[in-house]
Amino acid sequence: MLNLTSLEQQLLPPGTKGLALHAPLAQQALAQQNWNLLRGDTSFPVAVLKDGALQHNLQWMKRFCESRKVVLAPHGKTTMSPQLFEMQLQNGAWGMTLATVNQSLIAHRFGVKRVLLANQLVSSSDIRAIVTLMRQDPDFEFYALTDSLEAVKRLACEVRDAGLARPLRLLVELGFPGGRTGCRSQAEAIAVARAIHASPYLHLAGIEGYEGLLVSKNREQDLIAVREFIASLLQLTKIADTEQLFETDHILLSAGGSAYFDLVGRGFEQELALSRPVTAILRSGCYVTHDHGFYHGLVEEMREREAGMQDDYLQPALEVWSMVQSRPEPDLAILTMGKRDASYDIDLPFPLYHHRPQSVASGVAQASTLPAGCKIEKMNDQHAYLRLPPHSEIQHTLKVGDLVGCGISHPCTTFDKWPLILRVNDAYDVTGAINTFF
Amino acid sequence: MLNLTSLEQQLLPPGTKGLALHAPLAQQALAQQNWNLLRGDTSFPVAVLKDGALQHNLQWMKRFCESRKVVLAPHGKTTMSPQLFEMQLQNGAWGMTLATVNQSLIAHRFGVKRVLLANQLVSSSDIRAIVTLMRQDPDFEFYALTDSLEAVKRLACEVRDAGLARPLRLLVELGFPGGRTGCRSQAEAIAVARAIHASPYLHLAGIEGYEGLLVSKNREQDLIAVREFIASLLQLTKIADTEQLFETDHILLSAGGSAYFDLVGRGFEQELALSRPVTAILRSGCYVTHDHGFYHGLVEEMREREAGMQDDYLQPALEVWSMVQSRPEPDLAILTMGKRDASYDIDLPFPLYHHRPQSVASGVAQASTLPAGCKIEKMNDQHAYLRLPPHSEIQHTLKVGDLVGCGISHPCTTFDKWPLILRVNDAYDVTGAINTFF
Repeated sequence: MLNLTSLEQQLLPPGTKGLALHAPLAQQALAQQNWNLLRGDTSFPVAVLKDGALQHNLQWMKRFCESRKVVLAPHGKTTMSPQLFEMQLQNGAWGMTLATVNQSLIAHRFGVKRVLLANQLVSSSDIRAIVTLMRQDPDFEFYALTDSLEAVKRLACEVRDAGLARPLRLLVELGFPGGRTGCRSQAEAIAVARAIHASPYLHLAGIEGYEGLLVSKNREQDLIAVREFIASLLQLTKIADTEQLFETDHILLSAGGSAYFDLVGRGFEQELALSRPVTAILRSGCYVTHDHGFYHGLVEEMREREAGMQDDYLQPALEVWSMVQSRPEPDLAILTMGKRDASYDIDLPFPLYHHRPQSVASGVAQASTLPAGCKIEKMNDQHAYLRLPPHSEIQHTLKVGDLVGCGISHPCTTFDKWPLILRVNDAYDVTGAINTFF
Repeated sequence: MLNLTSLEQQLLPPGTKGLALHAPLAQQALAQQNWNLLRGDTSFPVAVLKDGALQHNLQWMKRFCESRKVVLAPHGKTTMSPQLFEMQLQNGAWGMTLATVNQSLIAHRFGVKRVLLANQLVSSSDIRAIVTLMRQDPDFEFYALTDSLEAVKRLACEVRDAGLARPLRLLVELGFPGGRTGCRSQAEAIAVARAIHASPYLHLAGIEGYEGLLVSKNREQDLIAVREFIASLLQLTKIADTEQLFETDHILLSAGGSAYFDLVGRGFEQELALSRPVTAILRSGCYVTHDHGFYHGLVEEMREREAGMQDDYLQPALEVWSMVQSRPEPDLAILTMGKRDASYDIDLPFPLYHHRPQSVASGVAQASTLPAGCKIEKMNDQHAYLRLPPHSEIQHTLKVGDLVGCGISHPCTTFDKWPLILRVNDAYDVTGAINTFF
């Protein structure tokens, strides 16, 4: 079993993305280098996590879950970072949600003992890998989703063939027409629940759904659909309980991406009066770093819905900084950043700050805010095109060698571009790093 | 210095993407596992490189360059794979092109001794890292691009301050209006060339441009623009030579992405009658794996332009396979693959093959071709939505647990999602793996 200390002790080689190393450096020595991003001490591009915002978000979500009487199994696929998993667990997370068996194995290598696989588990090779782990580590608690009789049959066969002593715990996934995975009707879902119950190799542990895909241009209709979907999850849970299909001490009831977790929390507050206790599980992943784009917009809407969020909500913690490498035309700056470095799947990065690095003592520098109208209009693999507003002062001041700090939209697709992400304080002093495993 | 043997000796831990490991496995033992993708022995998703197509492409490009009397410095950012770099160098590559200093340091760690940085080098920290390496390894030959007087000044100062004994070699980058980096006029470019020549810390080594961005909807105009741009590179080279600005034994003349390298080759065939020999360098990176999408289309056009390519051209070598995890609606299959696994920036993946894995001896299985009309219509982080054509047989036959093999468009953005990519023969037996360093 690896632990976080082993990551701190590893030697980072020259070429480590985000760092400008001349020789190998132990990760734990990063904080002692007295590097400051605004002084230009890192390589560019560099991705940074802002400690203050990160800690704020961890505590904010802990309080939110406590207030709604739900637990959090944050989706680990967002960050795939053992250090962040650890922080999430220390801030009260019930376990980690993950998207693949390999992600689950990585989390387990770093000490995560309870995993909810928020996906169908169908490949024989993957089932064997996870069942082997469950046999090797009796303390490892694992749950997966199922939405078909075919998948139930496959799982039962693999668990039987592997001779696993304890049954595999499954949640039935309910979906909705036009959605992703998940049974399309209560009848289908109950049939899957019965099939799980009927197998000695499987245990029905709960009901799951994912409302986070209900994001369209008509938010009013989205909200109605989300509330109806949560109601249908509760209904399915009641039916399955009435049929006495659940086989674990607690009934798990899980939903909640990063868009509507307030509504899921509200829905899960209902008293269900079931035969056994319910553990209501949110799975939001993006809350931990939040963003300047997609989730920023959705959480702004949440603030309007929830009185308690008016003055205290999530803060963006992830930024990507790059350098102006060329000023080939008056309104165009080419940055040393591209598709390899920052999310581009929902929005292109948002240029927020600029700064001219100077060799001065740390602590004095402060970045300036870029004027409105600055826009990343395109990215290639390794370049970004920053368009400057017409007739603006910044056209005259921004020059080759200046730094540009960008916010991003959709943290998942920035995390997966960085094996190592530097942590910084509000003055952009480097305080350490986290690792990711994609 | 690392070498490829050290990669083969490393232990791959459980959780390694693409593999279904129960225990750590040495990379060099992969070929002895007798794994076959079609039998379902890997994890899914899995990315594979087809050995036959890969070898074909390496040899094809070697012959192409020989026939045009150009050399190849393949863009390593495409794959960032030391094993592929090694194969490219063994197949005659002059050196490697790279996009960042950190990529250059990684290539050097694995023995690459000649690097063309196809980017402006502006960050002090990055300049110091590369200059330190040049001092540590006198055999390391490094070239970078410059398109501004500001960048020349920064480079000269850093090289002076670092006390580097040998001058830093630079190519002036020529661009075009509306393009990316690069001087917008011959006059600007000559001014930069003169500034380099004037500095004792810098040497002018050549002229560079990148024609690969000239891809619009009007291909006829694109081709005219590409030919004009190449002519302007040649003209600039002549002017700089007449002014005796070049300071290296050979004048480097470089262009050539993966879209128009035939035209660059034709342009560079011209006799320039300069004061010293010219090394004409192509930088194509995507040729090595080619693809089923963007570059496939461009190379099809190349075949029409070039008589010699009629029957012998590049073959797609990179595929991503995933499993049907859910069949929630008659015309919809949800695959265990998403934005984390396959390119989505130019096209979504192309579903090509399907197969139902069975536990039989290897060598007999063969995948079927998916019918026309099958389409990946959306990807989330970890899911793909495969839409099946209306009233098609495949709606009845495709079921949970079936494999789907996809081609991709733009190899760069698939490589960067896989730290390890399995090599397979034409029967999809696993023959080994390559590593990537992003």
